[in-house]
Amino acid sequence: MIKVGIVGGTGYTGVELLRLLALHPQVSLRVITSRADAGMAVSQMFPSLRGFVDLLFVHPDEAHLEQCDLVFFATPNGIAMQQTRALLDAGVKVIDLAADFRIQDISTWEKWYGMTHACPDLVAEAVYGLPEINREKIKSARLIANPGCYPTAVQLGFIPLLEAAAIDVSSLIADAKSGVSGAGRKAEIPALFAEAGDNFKAYGVAGHRHLPEIRQGLACVHGHDVGLTFVPHLTPLIRGIHATLYGKLTRDVDLQALFEQRYSKEPFVDVLPAGSHPETRSVRGSNRCRIAVHRPQGGDTVVVLSVIDNLVKGAAGQAVQNMNIMFDLPENTALNIVPLLP
Amino acid sequence: MIKVGIVGGTGYTGVELLRLLALHPQVSLRVITSRADAGMAVSQMFPSLRGFVDLLFVHPDEAHLEQCDLVFFATPNGIAMQQTRALLDAGVKVIDLAADFRIQDISTWEKWYGMTHACPDLVAEAVYGLPEINREKIKSARLIANPGCYPTAVQLGFIPLLEAAAIDVSSLIADAKSGVSGAGRKAEIPALFAEAGDNFKAYGVAGHRHLPEIRQGLACVHGHDVGLTFVPHLTPLIRGIHATLYGKLTRDVDLQALFEQRYSKEPFVDVLPAGSHPETRSVRGSNRCRIAVHRPQGGDTVVVLSVIDNLVKGAAGQAVQNMNIMFDLPENTALNIVPLLP
Amino acid sequence: MIKVGIVGGTGYTGVELLRLLALHPQVSLRVITSRADAGMAVSQMFPSLRGFVDLLFVHPDEAHLEQCDLVFFATPNGIAMQQTRALLDAGVKVIDLAADFRIQDISTWEKWYGMTHACPDLVAEAVYGLPEINREKIKSARLIANPGCYPTAVQLGFIPLLEAAAIDVSSLIADAKSGVSGAGRKAEIPALFAEAGDNFKAYGVAGHRHLPEIRQGLACVHGHDVGLTFVPHLTPLIRGIHATLYGKLTRDVDLQALFEQRYSKEPFVDVLPAGSHPETRSVRGSNRCRIAVHRPQGGDTVVVLSVIDNLVKGAAGQAVQNMNIMFDLPENTALNIVPLLP
Amino acid sequence: MIKVGIVGGTGYTGVELLRLLALHPQVSLRVITSRADAGMAVSQMFPSLRGFVDLLFVHPDEAHLEQCDLVFFATPNGIAMQQTRALLDAGVKVIDLAADFRIQDISTWEKWYGMTHACPDLVAEAVYGLPEINREKIKSARLIANPGCYPTAVQLGFIPLLEAAAIDVSSLIADAKSGVSGAGRKAEIPALFAEAGDNFKAYGVAGHRHLPEIRQGLACVHGHDVGLTFVPHLTPLIRGIHATLYGKLTRDVDLQALFEQRYSKEPFVDVLPAGSHPETRSVRGSNRCRIAVHRPQGGDTVVVLSVIDNLVKGAAGQAVQNMNIMFDLPENTALNIVPLLP
Repeated sequence: MIKVGIVGGTGYTGVELLRLLALHPQVSLRVITSRADAGMAVSQMFPSLRGFVDLLFVHPDEAHLEQCDLVFFATPNGIAMQQTRALLDAGVKVIDLAADFRIQDISTWEKWYGMTHACPDLVAEAVYGLPEINREKIKSARLIANPGCYPTAVQLGFIPLLEAAAIDVSSLIADAKSGVSGAGRKAEIPALFAEAGDNFKAYGVAGHRHLPEIRQGLACVHGHDVGLTFVPHLTPLIRGIHATLYGKLTRDVDLQALFEQRYSKEPFVDVLPAGSHPETRSVRGSNRCRIAVHRPQGGDTVVVLSVIDNLVKGAAGQAVQNMNIMFDLPENTALNIVPLLP
Repeated sequence: MIKVGIVGGTGYTGVELLRLLALHPQVSLRVITSRADAGMAVSQMFPSLRGFVDLLFVHPDEAHLEQCDLVFFATPNGIAMQQTRALLDAGVKVIDLAADFRIQDISTWEKWYGMTHACPDLVAEAVYGLPEINREKIKSARLIANPGCYPTAVQLGFIPLLEAAAIDVSSLIADAKSGVSGAGRKAEIPALFAEAGDNFKAYGVAGHRHLPEIRQGLACVHGHDVGLTFVPHLTPLIRGIHATLYGKLTRDVDLQALFEQRYSKEPFVDVLPAGSHPETRSVRGSNRCRIAVHRPQGGDTVVVLSVIDNLVKGAAGQAVQNMNIMFDLPENTALNIVPLLP
Repeated sequence: MIKVGIVGGTGYTGVELLRLLALHPQVSLRVITSRADAGMAVSQMFPSLRGFVDLLFVHPDEAHLEQCDLVFFATPNGIAMQQTRALLDAGVKVIDLAADFRIQDISTWEKWYGMTHACPDLVAEAVYGLPEINREKIKSARLIANPGCYPTAVQLGFIPLLEAAAIDVSSLIADAKSGVSGAGRKAEIPALFAEAGDNFKAYGVAGHRHLPEIRQGLACVHGHDVGLTFVPHLTPLIRGIHATLYGKLTRDVDLQALFEQRYSKEPFVDVLPAGSHPETRSVRGSNRCRIAVHRPQGGDTVVVLSVIDNLVKGAAGQAVQNMNIMFDLPENTALNIVPLLP
Repeated sequence: MIKVGIVGGTGYTGVELLRLLALHPQVSLRVITSRADAGMAVSQMFPSLRGFVDLLFVHPDEAHLEQCDLVFFATPNGIAMQQTRALLDAGVKVIDLAADFRIQDISTWEKWYGMTHACPDLVAEAVYGLPEINREKIKSARLIANPGCYPTAVQLGFIPLLEAAAIDVSSLIADAKSGVSGAGRKAEIPALFAEAGDNFKAYGVAGHRHLPEIRQGLACVHGHDVGLTFVPHLTPLIRGIHATLYGKLTRDVDLQALFEQRYSKEPFVDVLPAGSHPETRSVRGSNRCRIAVHRPQGGDTVVVLSVIDNLVKGAAGQAVQNMNIMFDLPENTALNIVPLLP
């Protein structure tokens, strides 16, 4: 059994980790921390977990995380980097669901996140936890930077085109739409039901923190920098991301075959038949990414539609997938979930 | 392995059966029928099932249901009663998710459902599949009348009070609210997003088909007829029923203890701590009923709050629970699901 | 022109007052205060008002409210009572949309609101602003206690039955459902889209602040205390309240005629034809209350369905209606609005 | 008073016309037709209109539309073209809210709409009713082709850039999101609450009927054909369209000034301050289009955000605006509406 700790269990990625791990046959949940709610039963805050999780929230100072085999950080940005070195030194593996270890260029990270980084050397060691790209490195990693939600949906949609050198990388466009749970379980007015409900808007057009992360990932695949315009939108869903991706084809290619072959062995990427339009609900609650690729009117613009559940493949599910890989378990352990539809 | 057939797999209870049965370790899904969509892959209609269900819809005439061990009817009212006798005669067990076998009084059924019943003798044999009341009978049943969604939520809330003879049965009130999936996957204007969204209304105040079913169930428990006012409402949820039940106490009783004791051994009924307010999302996608009992301001009115997922404990999940009981499997097989929250 | 000031213009009742008053032909909007957002353009916070409201938020200390003819308080409870005396002394009329002046019994108010009241004598003077009951008193009032949202919907539904002495007043039941805007524009987790969306729950069953307000109103009509169980629920609407009211008939009465006659001259109460089920969206954005009355199966239980828009007839619209009455304007001035459907 | 008839009053554009015209001081509503619901009171189908519209639906054969001054067609495609000539010959003006007269190239229209056109000569006469482009022609028109919802939002966003010849017209991208009311009040499964709720998807990527309409409009402004990729999406809103438009700048230009100047005199186009993100709810129920223009990271990609209410500026409101222009009334008559927020 893998002894698991979770730091910061009161947000949406925390409760989603609990949903998935509660039924994981190889996981023993040892500790869940919360500074503000220490002493409260987890299932009091999240009644959905009644009968599945019996733990109380524990204050970070009393968590004894060093006794775990693996610690997930489901915390705001800037927390994991304070505690990771001590855990690694104690032989504990770490998966950070926040952004502390995602950006290799420290000055870029510090600019976008507005903090001084506490451990640049660990950033260099961290493996970016997108299994479809880094599965081998993940197997032996001590420290995983779990990808962001938008970056997961966008990268999985662009990767086959970049690997095949089939599109002009100077002007990629990612028009992405997210459900409101992506904003986290934080008391902020724009995320209120009466604000976000029956409403649609773009945000962060001037620049969103996931932009440098996506650019880094795409540059890695392509070999050089890419030009990307990224426009996120807030849509009145609870869960779900839909990325609509646009690129200009530079050569003729069988797009459907290209995508199907690229992901033929991936357990969590499903390429839909030609002409399909994936719905966010078709992955609700599951770790799948579903993708369709189009070439409207046979022109030179390729349109990729990519959907994930932002809390699963975009956060907690991918983290569990990474854990399974790190501990040499079947990759879909505890992730063999039929999406909830309707 | 139990060889299972589903008649009428294109509605919401059908796809929900598929979601649950796809991962059931003792079930072999043999056939799913659809008159209108025969030949189409099930996963084409419901992409959420891609990777889990490989069957095509089969025309009823070519279904060979008699080769199954168990057939679920997820059909409109009036279909199951036409086919059940032949299946029973062939040794196949039947669970009807519609209303054909729910009402023991045939003339009452015919009045509310507007049809002549095809097999009154089988109604007499049928067991009403509410395990919390009829578990023993279900074990040996050939034919199960799976309860309606409202009746499940309402009966589970009233049963402890009736069994304890603690309330005036002459004027019970059940104010119930249902998500829109309760109306089924039918193309009807009132169920459109632009009609049912951001809107709340009562319906069927003069009389709803679930009224006689609830009355029958409560009378069974009480021993005599009960007086019940039942007002259903449509609320802009996809899944979920919330029943708010009112009764007048006739004697002093420890309500919390009464409910906790009544359901202490039930795997799918969860009595919340005193003072709680169950949320529909706390059971989303799961087979649980969560209940809280209140006595506002210490007066003589008892208020019971009861929530279920109408498609699970209110339909497909309860059907699988009944199947597990009939085939002597652990009752929560394939039903050990953490609710999806948020 | 009526010179109008608004104290606390950043909440939902504030912006709703602005929506209605911006087109009121007899109103000159002079000042809107906000402590936190002084200096910001109102239309920056609420872009829906661009082109209609040019004011900036003003700090309360610089508002010169005494120069207004009328001041609306769209503030949290406990603010209006601090400032009302000075305004009245300066000859300014006051309409409080919060609860400071609603409860005549000071100790009851202090118990439910957890504060010491600053001006009990003004409570005695204040007129409860439900025009359907108090129109004459409102005409000459200096100070209006604008009713709460639930109390408006519930009282309008019960009044005809109480006036006709047709029901047993010892055990009235009000099962009420509110949209999330009723919680106000406050950053609180339970009102987040990802919490309140696709979810339904009761709250405050043990006791809600609107309970004493409703009881007081019903007792006023009846002449003596009434017994009332009030259960509020949160439903995933933005706007709208649906009250489902239950009472036991004590004598035979033509319910439809009773309701139609009671409200035949009321401009904002619409009694629907027999057998109707009012929808919340049928009053969205308007000052109407729509009511239907049922007697299921001809029994002795009467069921009243009453819907309002909680921000209009339940708050800002009723406040404007009161203003129109106080200033001897046609009662529907600026309130002649067709509900927004769909 | 303008004598007005409406053909096809039972859909969402029909009821929206009624909402707007009911309070129009210069309009006398004479007749509303419905083949299926003749004889029913309009306010029975749409209770929101109780107290505002007293008409019954009339069978088309008994409508005497030739006695009107103006007839609106709020019908499915292919109806208006059958009846328009007779009305024009009788001296009646016509505004078609469907697509019958929108596409000047008849073979293009016939290809996309799958019908033979009944009156190509009238297409040649019809004026495309986008006042921001065609105000002068509208003044003297007998026949208006009221623009589609997507085309309105997309054209208003691109027009300033095309007129200024500031972008590469060979590869424009319009990523558009619509609320579900855009699908009409039709009983179809994909528009059910339980299908479209809590779900997001693209549709019609291979080709949508609004594509040729948008291309025609943009080509008109530009002078030659343009290259456009148009991807519509369905989002769980009732009302609202958000178009996110992408183009490559070909020269340096002050984008903010360009947009502000272009629309400075337009009563219904509001250019937001630099850096803004318009929300669909900021125009809910109103005839406004709100636009923001961005140049992310100072690169050569321009991003325009354009929002309308699809039923108002995208349909019925624009039709009333056209009527006001045709009858020489102040353009905002009956359209001076504050959007409903929240």
